[in-house]
Amino acid sequence: MASSPLPADAAQIRALIEARVAAIHAKDIAALVAAHAPEPVMFDVLPPLAYQGLDTVKQRAEKWAGSYDGPIGYEIRDVRVTAGADAAFAHYLYHVTGTLNAGATVAMWVRATLGLLKVDGAWKIAHDHESVPFDPATGQASLDLTPDTPAS
Amino acid sequence: MASSPLPADAAQIRALIEARVAAIHAKDIAALVAAHAPEPVMFDVLPPLAYQGLDTVKQRAEKWAGSYDGPIGYEIRDVRVTAGADAAFAHYLYHVTGTLNAGATVAMWVRATLGLLKVDGAWKIAHDHESVPFDPATGQASLDLTPDTPAS
Repeated sequence: MASSPLPADAAQIRALIEARVAAIHAKDIAALVAAHAPEPVMFDVLPPLAYQGLDTVKQRAEKWAGSYDGPIGYEIRDVRVTAGADAAFAHYLYHVTGTLNAGATVAMWVRATLGLLKVDGAWKIAHDHESVPFDPATGQASLDLTPDTPAS
Repeated sequence: MASSPLPADAAQIRALIEARVAAIHAKDIAALVAAHAPEPVMFDVLPPLAYQGLDTVKQRAEKWAGSYDGPIGYEIRDVRVTAGADAAFAHYLYHVTGTLNAGATVAMWVRATLGLLKVDGAWKIAHDHESVPFDPATGQASLDLTPDTPAS
């Protein structure tokens, strides 16, 4: 059987991503956590390699949002959603900006990939992989890339 | 409708991942490329942020495999597959080891997430996100993490 896109499901997942952006702008941790399936596995921008469980997701979201002094800028682009009837994945790029409590400014593009499951009729995030690449010549994370930066 | 796992599809995707490991060990670029859907979007360990298309996937796989002097070690663990009827996602950790042509040794753990589509009855990779985290204190990629490294 050939796969076919399911527009209603894709629209629901796009709405979930938009709600996520709104929750980040509002630093609404409860809303962020509520979008997850019961046992999510996370590959985050910062160490460790992986973590899982809603309690850990909540703690890390609180720590992350709390590390910013004032608002968090979070602009997304290049959203692509591939939805089946009961499993889906989506990816996008986001530009996160703001000022940390320690005074440093953040302005970087990050890649995000979501794995989603339909749980009791609603799409939930079961997996979230977010990262920046690194420069093999220096070992430094590539924090100054833009979506238009060509391959070297 | 509640989601339910589809064991046959999950088994096919696990077999695809095992075949991928074998293709990397054999530096069989044709086999690696053949596992992809027609217009894959890739978020790779190294810059740029994203690239797409089978030609680019092939070129980068050739460049990557060619950068190793001798065999590439590639050990996977913590594979989790979530398969629907026509879309799926999977993630795992891999330990890549070897010696580069320039003489440097590589030994690092990487996170991998695949987004998969069923194309003419066969699962294909439509999206691949691979990365290591980075240390925000130094800006360095975290190349010495292991799956057992706790959160700091």
